[in-house]
Amino acid sequence: MAYTQSLAQVKDRLQIHSILARQCLAEFLGVFVLTLLIQGTLAQAVTSGGTKGNFFIMFLASSLGVRLAIYISGNVSGAHLNPAFSLVMCLLGCLPWVKFPIYSLVQLLSAFCASGAVYALYHDALQNYTGGNLTVTGPKETASIFVTYPAPYLSLSNGFLDQVLGTWMLTVGILAILDARNKGVPARVEPVVVGLLILAIRLSMGASCGFPINPAWDLDPRLFTYMAGWGPEVFSAGNGWW
Amino acid sequence: MAYTQSLAQVKDRLQIHSILARQCLAEFLGVFVLTLLIQGTLAQAVTSGGTKGNFFIMFLASSLGVRLAIYISGNVSGAHLNPAFSLVMCLLGCLPWVKFPIYSLVQLLSAFCASGAVYALYHDALQNYTGGNLTVTGPKETASIFVTYPAPYLSLSNGFLDQVLGTWMLTVGILAILDARNKGVPARVEPVVVGLLILAIRLSMGASCGFPINPAWDLDPRLFTYMAGWGPEVFSAGNGWW
Amino acid sequence: MAYTQSLAQVKDRLQIHSILARQCLAEFLGVFVLTLLIQGTLAQAVTSGGTKGNFFIMFLASSLGVRLAIYISGNVSGAHLNPAFSLVMCLLGCLPWVKFPIYSLVQLLSAFCASGAVYALYHDALQNYTGGNLTVTGPKETASIFVTYPAPYLSLSNGFLDQVLGTWMLTVGILAILDARNKGVPARVEPVVVGLLILAIRLSMGASCGFPINPAWDLDPRLFTYMAGWGPEVFSAGNGWW
Amino acid sequence: MAYTQSLAQVKDRLQIHSILARQCLAEFLGVFVLTLLIQGTLAQAVTSGGTKGNFFIMFLASSLGVRLAIYISGNVSGAHLNPAFSLVMCLLGCLPWVKFPIYSLVQLLSAFCASGAVYALYHDALQNYTGGNLTVTGPKETASIFVTYPAPYLSLSNGFLDQVLGTWMLTVGILAILDARNKGVPARVEPVVVGLLILAIRLSMGASCGFPINPAWDLDPRLFTYMAGWGPEVFSAGNGWW
Repeated sequence: MAYTQSLAQVKDRLQIHSILARQCLAEFLGVFVLTLLIQGTLAQAVTSGGTKGNFFIMFLASSLGVRLAIYISGNVSGAHLNPAFSLVMCLLGCLPWVKFPIYSLVQLLSAFCASGAVYALYHDALQNYTGGNLTVTGPKETASIFVTYPAPYLSLSNGFLDQVLGTWMLTVGILAILDARNKGVPARVEPVVVGLLILAIRLSMGASCGFPINPAWDLDPRLFTYMAGWGPEVFSAGNGWW
Repeated sequence: MAYTQSLAQVKDRLQIHSILARQCLAEFLGVFVLTLLIQGTLAQAVTSGGTKGNFFIMFLASSLGVRLAIYISGNVSGAHLNPAFSLVMCLLGCLPWVKFPIYSLVQLLSAFCASGAVYALYHDALQNYTGGNLTVTGPKETASIFVTYPAPYLSLSNGFLDQVLGTWMLTVGILAILDARNKGVPARVEPVVVGLLILAIRLSMGASCGFPINPAWDLDPRLFTYMAGWGPEVFSAGNGWW
Repeated sequence: MAYTQSLAQVKDRLQIHSILARQCLAEFLGVFVLTLLIQGTLAQAVTSGGTKGNFFIMFLASSLGVRLAIYISGNVSGAHLNPAFSLVMCLLGCLPWVKFPIYSLVQLLSAFCASGAVYALYHDALQNYTGGNLTVTGPKETASIFVTYPAPYLSLSNGFLDQVLGTWMLTVGILAILDARNKGVPARVEPVVVGLLILAIRLSMGASCGFPINPAWDLDPRLFTYMAGWGPEVFSAGNGWW
Repeated sequence: MAYTQSLAQVKDRLQIHSILARQCLAEFLGVFVLTLLIQGTLAQAVTSGGTKGNFFIMFLASSLGVRLAIYISGNVSGAHLNPAFSLVMCLLGCLPWVKFPIYSLVQLLSAFCASGAVYALYHDALQNYTGGNLTVTGPKETASIFVTYPAPYLSLSNGFLDQVLGTWMLTVGILAILDARNKGVPARVEPVVVGLLILAIRLSMGASCGFPINPAWDLDPRLFTYMAGWGPEVFSAGNGWW
């Protein structure tokens, strides 16, 4: 009896009553889980020398990660997961402008922490695979676990088109899936169907840039890999148009 | 306040009030997205030399593409996506005959535009893979990104049977899935299940012809690849019975 | 107007009013589609020399095929698809005994026809792959498209255990999925979940025998391949305990 | 008539009226099916020399297995499937402490029986693959069918982190999926979505330890493989920190 009562007290104290704090926590959790799943899959594939992962597995992991992140943060913060998406929501009047810097900061912070978690999680595997020499290029490069680099042949204009078309497809797809007057998906299955949309986009447009639409996955991991010992090359390698 | 108001005005002006125009737009969007996803996956597979795609990924992409296209156009235009299907709908009395040429034209136009988008999207990758020499046959052929050619050993009668059986299976499957008096799928999950049907047909009957049931994917891409520099071979190569 | 009217008349004449005839047609269609999909996938894999199919694709195809067959025949005949399952239904009192021979005959006939359709569909591909020499054993054997042979090392008792455990798992799984007092699946999504059950069983118990639980897939295809030119070896090859 | 009546009598006698007995049976069945599917897939992959299974298939099988196990035991015993999870449920006050040893014992017993079933099922295949020499290490090792060993390079602290992060992700994911005030999944589709969560965790964190979070899968199989002839090495091999 006393046990159950104290449990209820703990529950009550742990409850967060501020809506903004809840939203920040939801965004943090969502981005953290998403980044952890995607970078973890990449780390598993890279450090096993390709025997425990391949490009399809990575695409599948982003699909499953997005699905899970939406289930986690969907009804609390709206599952933006991405500073660019938060910006669009502000422009459309769905998010008050004052919340934009807060959301963005939380998202960037979360992706940074997730990169750290993946690094810690695969610390021994990384040491074993690289022999302790973390590099951005070469046959044993490991920076691609954290950062998406465009293909070396890609020109600036083609890369730009790639991003525009990818974002357009994502937006059209999400709007079609959420539109209840059309053949909208039941609300509780939405995350699964949005996850499949991400998979489709990655399968058809993931070759050139890796679809790195999320600034939280571009800025953050570069900073992290720079700090974790990959050297300043992380900011320049792999693309002539940075 | 003024910001929100002007947003509402923009929304109102952008609204399309003609039903036919809406249906055309829905068909255009649906076919465009579907073609973009399928040809994009093929382009990704071919230009990466098979390291970022394979036959299963392509079949999966058609499945996901059909799913998305139905979510986009399902409740507006009926998601025909295919001149042949529009013709069947006219014969069954579900589409007025006067709309048939309009639907067909929109579908053909959309597939043509999507081929162009894929070409633009993978322009640098194509140049890098082929060295600028676009060919229809040979080890570095790239026409198969856009056009489906039957296997060289296929006779005319066997190819005909292939198409008849594939279409029959597709029709039986769709009718069974949509039939509410049978174990019909809930309306909002239909696109997912139809997508899986396409996957099953491709897995079991995709070897000989590639299941190119859609005239919009046969006529259009030949014209496009001819114009984009693959040469007149696109109309003849790969099949002795054209 | 007259067009629509005559359409309605055609519909009315085509309607089948006998319940038994409907059930037979449903079983025939279900088994036909299922067999066509599974054997078609095998034919695609074998005749392409493994480049357009592999063991996972085959397992996936049975999963998708079962799903489709249940959507087709589920609410009409109960989607037995299998003489053994019809027998169980009779024993449980869910099917009148008088219908058992009719169901069985229809199922056997349908699987036989489907084998014929696959043979016709892949006629040219088979000729191209084998050079016209259809064999049951050897590097270019093609009988395994139609018949499931147990692994050569398998003893009779182990094969028996394999079949018993597989059937037990199938039965437990289906009962759990259909049980509405438990976490039962919504009726209209049942076929998808049953399909996934088949996939799971095949993945974990498909190595030794190929899980050929269905007499319609054991007797029939042997007869068919014998008649189609594979020779009397089809009844004996591959297993010492037949 | 008499037939149907005796059938009803048999049904009535077979009914189990004690709730605890039902729960034990449900846990036993759930763990048995789950273990059978996972170890069966591993056995199929190992004994076929990798031609009928690979790491992705194994991850997929755990996903499908968990799904099925929840459908089997979900509404009866709560589908703990795992002594560790039962412990958490006791701590949270969802399971009376008195049931904990019973649940645990049943789970351990069930996993042990399932290992035995897999061994019997793949007896001939194991003999054929190993030539009768069951080993824990070396190129033809077969102990990994039953026991998950951590990667040799893994330190104790990194292995600990791996388990903590994996469990954390699992808990967050399940809570998010079950939370009806958030974007919760419809109750009857929960098992499918939880299955996908398991797949995601395995894909991104399965490299180092294989995510052997379940004591029933760590203790039991070591005991079983020791008894079945793999020798005392099963308790020590593969990890320096045991």
